[in-house]
Parts: sequence; C-alpha cells; structure tokens
Amino acid sequence: MFALTFLGTSASVPSAERNHPALLVEAAGKRILIDCGEGTQRQLLRSGAGFRRLDRILLTHAHLDHVLGIPGLFSTLGLRQSSDVMTIHGGPGTLDIVIRMLAGLWGAGRAPIPVEFAALSEGQVIDAGGFTIDCFPVRHRDTDSFGFVFQSPARRHLLPDRLASLGVPDGPLRGELAQGRPVVIEDGRTIDPEDVLGPATGGRKLVVIGDTETTEGLSQYVADADMLVIEATFLDRDASIARDYGHLTAAEAAAFAAANNVGQLVLTHMSGRYEDEEILAEAARIFPNSRIAADFDHIVV
Amino acid sequence: MFALTFLGTSASVPSAERNHPALLVEAAGKRILIDCGEGTQRQLLRSGAGFRRLDRILLTHAHLDHVLGIPGLFSTLGLRQSSDVMTIHGGPGTLDIVIRMLAGLWGAGRAPIPVEFAALSEGQVIDAGGFTIDCFPVRHRDTDSFGFVFQSPARRHLLPDRLASLGVPDGPLRGELAQGRPVVIEDGRTIDPEDVLGPATGGRKLVVIGDTETTEGLSQYVADADMLVIEATFLDRDASIARDYGHLTAAEAAAFAAANNVGQLVLTHMSGRYEDEEILAEAARIFPNSRIAADFDHIVV
Repeated sequence: MFALTFLGTSASVPSAERNHPALLVEAAGKRILIDCGEGTQRQLLRSGAGFRRLDRILLTHAHLDHVLGIPGLFSTLGLRQSSDVMTIHGGPGTLDIVIRMLAGLWGAGRAPIPVEFAALSEGQVIDAGGFTIDCFPVRHRDTDSFGFVFQSPARRHLLPDRLASLGVPDGPLRGELAQGRPVVIEDGRTIDPEDVLGPATGGRKLVVIGDTETTEGLSQYVADADMLVIEATFLDRDASIARDYGHLTAAEAAAFAAANNVGQLVLTHMSGRYEDEEILAEAARIFPNSRIAADFDHIVV
Repeated sequence: MFALTFLGTSASVPSAERNHPALLVEAAGKRILIDCGEGTQRQLLRSGAGFRRLDRILLTHAHLDHVLGIPGLFSTLGLRQSSDVMTIHGGPGTLDIVIRMLAGLWGAGRAPIPVEFAALSEGQVIDAGGFTIDCFPVRHRDTDSFGFVFQSPARRHLLPDRLASLGVPDGPLRGELAQGRPVVIEDGRTIDPEDVLGPATGGRKLVVIGDTETTEGLSQYVADADMLVIEATFLDRDASIARDYGHLTAAEAAAFAAANNVGQLVLTHMSGRYEDEEILAEAARIFPNSRIAADFDHIVV
C-alpha cells in the first residue's frame, strides 16, 4: 500500500491554488519525497504531514521548479536540530545542480543537516523492506531525468480454517509455513505451505514520472501499474507548444495509460492556462479512470 | 499614502498560516518588495498583487528566511520574458550572500532577468517622486541589517473659496500659487500663496524594521512615524531566548512605539510557538494601537 500526498501540482509557474511540484509517498513506515519545489516545507506543514521521518528525496530532474525548496527545507530541518542523514537521489546531472545550489548558500560541501547524494542509474534505487523503488531514464529537454517504480510484493496469508482442520498448532511452525517452508507437526505429518496459504494479494505498483517529452520507450516500466502519476502540462490543442517545451498533453498521458493496462491515472504539473475540467475531459475520453491531482490530495493505492 | 500587503509574517520557520517574510509597499504608482522569503512569488499570486511593475527589492538582511524566494521569483519573471531591470538594495554583506546564491544557480553574474545590486549606506535610498525611502543600520546578530523609512511629503492645497474671493482666474496662475510662488493678476494686484493655500496635510511616515536585537539608537529614525512595522518574535516571558537569538519581544516593540510617538504599531515575524492573542495582549498593554500582521493583510497608512 502506498499513500500519496500531493504537496504541489503546478507546472513551472505556481498559481494561487497550486504550489510547485512535490509529492510525498508513504509506505511501510517510510516517507519519501519526490521533487521539492519552492515552498515544499510549508506545504508539508499545511498538509499536516510535517517533517518527521523525512530522510529521502528522489529528484525527477533539476529544473528549478522541482528543486528550489531544498535549501529552505534543509534550513528548517537544521533549526529543528535534526541529525538524520538526508539522502538525495537523482541523476548525476541533477545532483550536480543541487550540489552547486547548496554550495552557493553554505559553501562547498556544506549544509545545515548531514546530506548524502546517491546518483541514479537504471535499476533498483532501494529495497526498503516492505517495498522497493526502481528508476528508469526519462527524456525531458536538457535534463538528466528519471521516473520511479514503487512496488510492494504480493503476499500469501495463512488460512486459519485450513490450519485448524490440519491441526497445525499456534506458534513458530505457523511462521515457517507463512514463509513458505514445509513443517512436520507433532503427529509426524508434513504440512506443505500450499495446503495452508491463500492466494497472493496486496502487491502494488505505483509509477511516478515527472516532466517528460515523450512516453516512447517507457511502456516496459509502466505496464500493469496500479497507479500512474504523470505530467500533463498541456492540452492536445497546444500539442506543438508541448513539443517545443518538452512536455506531454493530457491526451498523450491518457493514451499511454490505456496502452499499458494501468489501473488509475493521476495527472499533475498542469499549466495554469487551463481549467481542471477541460484537462480531465481530454484524458477521460481516452482513459476513463483519470484524475487531476490538486494540492493536498491524499490518495492511497 | 502607503498601501502595505503582508505577503509573509512568520519567523524563520513558516507555519500553516504564515509564510516566510515579505512585505509589498505600494505608493505613487510604484511597488517595492521588502524581503523575499521562500514562496513569495506564490504569495504575490495568492494576494492578488501579481508581478506587474515589480522592479525593486529592499532587503533588511540576508538570513535565508528573508531571501530564499528571490531565485524562484526571478525564474518566474524570466519565464514571463520580463525585460525590466530588477534592483536589489541591501547592505554590502547582504548583497554578497544574494550574489553567491544566484551564482550557485545560474553561474557568476548571471540571472534569468537583468538585475542591479545597490549597496545601502545610511541615508536616502531613492527619491521616487511622490515619496522617498531612507535607510538606517539595525543590529541583528552577524548580519548587515537595515531598516527603512518611507516618507511622502505633506502638501498644501489651494482653497477654492479664497481664490474666488480674491479673483484669481483659472489657469496657469493658480498652478504658480500651488507651487508656492506669488503671482500678479490682471488688475495689478499681487497674490501671495499664503493667502490661498490651506494647511499642510497628507504627509505620511512609514518605518519598517526587520529582525533586530535591540531598539537602542533607533528612536531618531522612528520618531513620529504614522506606522511602525517591526518584528516581535518572542514574548516577554522568553526575553532571554529573544536575547540569545537577537530578536525583540512584543513588549519591547510596544515600548519602543510608545516612546517615539508612533501612530500605529504592526507586529510581524512572530514565533509559531505563540497564539496571536497573547502577542497582541502583551503589546497592547503598553501601546494600545497595536496590531498583529497576518498573511494577506492589506493596510493603508
């Protein structure tokens, strides 16, 4: 299960309603921030999420609307005398920009909190225990962009009625069976896990793609996602502007979801020139289970 | 007349209700931003003030909560293809920090819009036509801090009944009298300006002081101000913390206003640990015409 809190949903210029991009993903007791546009620290406060256990930032890319909130967040964490290490994951080009930004404020290699930089390359970012994060390259103008796949494994749970009817006692033997290992019970019978485990359930796949100029080549990462969060900066009527600025239209995002067996599509990073209704209408014509993210939306998948 | 829009009223850490410090002052068709904390560009949008004719920033000092909104504001002005020069006024130490911050993002001497840096020293900052801005040094920890005095001159207006009874015709002669120069009318009489001008009215004095560790030595600049905007980070019960961090208490700010014949006191930069009511109560006991600024407050003086 992944709980998403949209902290900012604007394109490069914010609006009265939408802050700069940032998305908080919570799973298995961990909290991960994806992008950190200007004002994200206050959005964390306004959303009620706060700063606790926030020790990892994934950056899709380093256009300034996605990273200018980092210095202020670090300042505030420093004032709170946080001693946790903050890990920032981003493409090497992205990290270079962030490192220069921090150096401009605090001097080379300095920051108000301990920071580690972890350069992304395609593949696994972390195995966080209850879930994994993988990343894949994304094309967006001159940036070193990445998208992210969050996956929690499907689990098979023990069936109490089967355990009872087979006479498996409470205790460590049940734990062994839950782990998929056969056990021998008191009367000498061997119990096979297949006899007491239900079907696999609860596996979830969440894909988050920031700014991107195309969906070409991304199907392999997005296929069968329960939820896809992706930019939809423009409408189809402005497709040529979308091309010029390296962004998608709502129609393209929806067609991409439809082609890849996605469960739900959440659009974000919308240009302030459009009404939500027209963006949603364009997407829903192609992919009905579409939604436009608003600041402070909380969605669980 | 000065119109103030409070864009941010928090101390160093924002809250759900208060953004980082920034104050827009409008007078005689000019707009001046005092400080530019993180998120100020969005506060400009949320307040309805927008970005038009915004070409001058006065910085009280360069602690990051007062300047981190500058890069994002410049990015957005750049996207709007603004070609106006933005002038940033601050103490030399303040400007050094801002220049390094911008260099960390765009390279030395570069920015998305044309920027001029104007170092403050005590005295006049600008004569903007309908009003003047002067600055004076303020002590706040390790910073190079300044406070600002906005003054619009009192004016004497022509009295229509006196003009009529003395037989001064419409036209340029009245303009001469309004400028304070005597004129000779058709029948040979000399009309003295003192005979047709009313009393001086409409002069206004607004003083804005950012973070400060003391009011000592500041009376000469604040005396007889129609309005004083000043920090009140702490309450008297935390006076020792106020000393340690180089800030005022509400009681100190109020006593300072009371001692200097100030018209109205507006407190800002309050620590999030207090309720507005207790801050206001502490100030109003000493200086009744006190007010606690809230984000988006619009006050005319």
